[in-house]
Amino acid sequence: MKKHNYSAGPCILPQEVFDKSAQAILDFNNSGLSILEISHRSKDFVAVMDEARALVLNLLGLEGKGYQALFLAGGASLEFLMVPYNLMKENGKAAYLDSGTWASAAIKEAKLFGETVIVASSKEDNYTYIPKGYEIPADADYFHCTSNNTIFGTQMKTFPKTNVPLVCDMSSDIFSRDIDFSQFDIIYAGAQKNMGPAGTTLVVIKEEILGKNGRTIPSMLDYAKHIKAESMFNTPPVFSVYASLLTLKWIKEKGGIPAVEKLNNAKAELLYNEIDRNPLFKGAANVEDRSNMNVTFLLTNPEHAETFDKMWKEAGVSGLPGHRSVGGYRASIYNAMPIESVQVLVDVMQALEKAI
Amino acid sequence: MKKHNYSAGPCILPQEVFDKSAQAILDFNNSGLSILEISHRSKDFVAVMDEARALVLNLLGLEGKGYQALFLAGGASLEFLMVPYNLMKENGKAAYLDSGTWASAAIKEAKLFGETVIVASSKEDNYTYIPKGYEIPADADYFHCTSNNTIFGTQMKTFPKTNVPLVCDMSSDIFSRDIDFSQFDIIYAGAQKNMGPAGTTLVVIKEEILGKNGRTIPSMLDYAKHIKAESMFNTPPVFSVYASLLTLKWIKEKGGIPAVEKLNNAKAELLYNEIDRNPLFKGAANVEDRSNMNVTFLLTNPEHAETFDKMWKEAGVSGLPGHRSVGGYRASIYNAMPIESVQVLVDVMQALEKAI
Repeated sequence: MKKHNYSAGPCILPQEVFDKSAQAILDFNNSGLSILEISHRSKDFVAVMDEARALVLNLLGLEGKGYQALFLAGGASLEFLMVPYNLMKENGKAAYLDSGTWASAAIKEAKLFGETVIVASSKEDNYTYIPKGYEIPADADYFHCTSNNTIFGTQMKTFPKTNVPLVCDMSSDIFSRDIDFSQFDIIYAGAQKNMGPAGTTLVVIKEEILGKNGRTIPSMLDYAKHIKAESMFNTPPVFSVYASLLTLKWIKEKGGIPAVEKLNNAKAELLYNEIDRNPLFKGAANVEDRSNMNVTFLLTNPEHAETFDKMWKEAGVSGLPGHRSVGGYRASIYNAMPIESVQVLVDVMQALEKAI
Repeated sequence: MKKHNYSAGPCILPQEVFDKSAQAILDFNNSGLSILEISHRSKDFVAVMDEARALVLNLLGLEGKGYQALFLAGGASLEFLMVPYNLMKENGKAAYLDSGTWASAAIKEAKLFGETVIVASSKEDNYTYIPKGYEIPADADYFHCTSNNTIFGTQMKTFPKTNVPLVCDMSSDIFSRDIDFSQFDIIYAGAQKNMGPAGTTLVVIKEEILGKNGRTIPSMLDYAKHIKAESMFNTPPVFSVYASLLTLKWIKEKGGIPAVEKLNNAKAELLYNEIDRNPLFKGAANVEDRSNMNVTFLLTNPEHAETFDKMWKEAGVSGLPGHRSVGGYRASIYNAMPIESVQVLVDVMQALEKAI
């Protein structure tokens, strides 16, 4: 039976990524060798890394604009400390927007490096909305925000205009919508939502902002060293990079980010419309900040949970329970989720309405 | 045509690891989902992580001895800085043995944290031997060594007796020979030699040595935080951990480390005997320090290189050229390399002797 995988991450990827990466494990590029046993310095893998780095910049519209793309390891959580290590001056100051659990985790690490100003926070309201109308200190070394809050189902629709470097954690919505990516100085994203399997982290950096904070940075935490080594300062996570390249190529073949965004909007509209129409459900996040990636919703009457849970499981839906800090349900509808799978969930919601 | 993969890492793994991991990408545990799309918090993956961590301690004979096994990301190069961050006191001192390129890279990172004493070095002789007869300062916070030097083909046959914590980078020979692993306080190893594909790093820690150096450690670099989170502080490199578990199970099924060591000794003996017997070849490393994992050797007459290179390539051998800092050849004969493949190389060496 076909599964409809609503997992928040690691999550659904295109079927052709599964098929091609499984094949590469048995025989990569007709070399007689597995992708798991080839040297990262082999011609075939260097080509994978080069193509993946170039395709990232191409998809984001950042070619020829002074940006570099890196495939690192350690997850977005490692970037929480790499960003201040590389950008915050000794006795400097960083500014952060506190819009959710991951933003808060990033703030915690920044505080180890110096003054960390929280420009606004929605923590008191359990992060149900994106704070707005805040001011960014003009003397901050950078401003950090989280574009999409996976756990709470909120998403920044616009980004502040500021003269300080703009850093964004896009782990859960990169490659999902067409925005002006050149407004950012650093974009980072754990692969395991829209880009590939867990195990690699994309970091896109405007090169000119590096080397200005005067700190001595350990080699593995130094963006400049990774750029100089063309993202091969040490052995990269070969398989995860390869599977990410397959996913990036799938996005390109689909028509790039604008085409993917159109489908994402249709999926989100289908699901939010049902949540708003069906009296048995209500959305969990502030309407204007609703995420097009993670749709959080609740039953108006929690007593229907047992029946609803049985119904969606029988329909082949998996990964729907909400995060413990929100409760209810979270339907993660990343790029690779087909609209047909969203329709299956909507059908179950309507069937529940009829059954009650 | 069957390939005989002598790559230094990433490198050959057991065929069943390729077969089973490719299958898990198409359908993991008959779940209808790919190993690449399941949540790391799912019951099935938590079981993988738990089993892998337990099997490491079982294979190393460290069960019930106060050790914890972690599967982290970032590669052994990230451990170069995590070790001093976790063990070196403010104004403390660390002691390092400089036996090769990677030992030297570890020393470079330690120097950022405090006084770093190099107890001995073979750098002046291009690391052709393992230094011996050195003294470890009794007031060092720890002593760090590299058990096997992948590039130069040398291997420590014994480890110093010392009262300071003993830290060892075993990236290229872990699980290859039966030694008393309880003499070490930290063992770390990038997966991509004997344990699995690139993308995860094994760290085995005697828990009692942590929390004593008084530093504030960033979360992702703090071993204690990773232990507390049972190696899931953040999303782990799911696929690399799974493929590592498959490799560890293969070692266990073979009879564990003692059985694997016996085969490794036979392979190394076969190849070194030919290098010593055949007048066209000579070993690159000091005889008593020769590695059983990376066999470095040279042609006595470099003019034969063209003929030899053509012959081994025709025999299906790949990954044989030596590292640029040694030249000649390097045959990496990790656990998964069958003795039949070593015989193929020996046959080519003998055929060269007849052809000249």
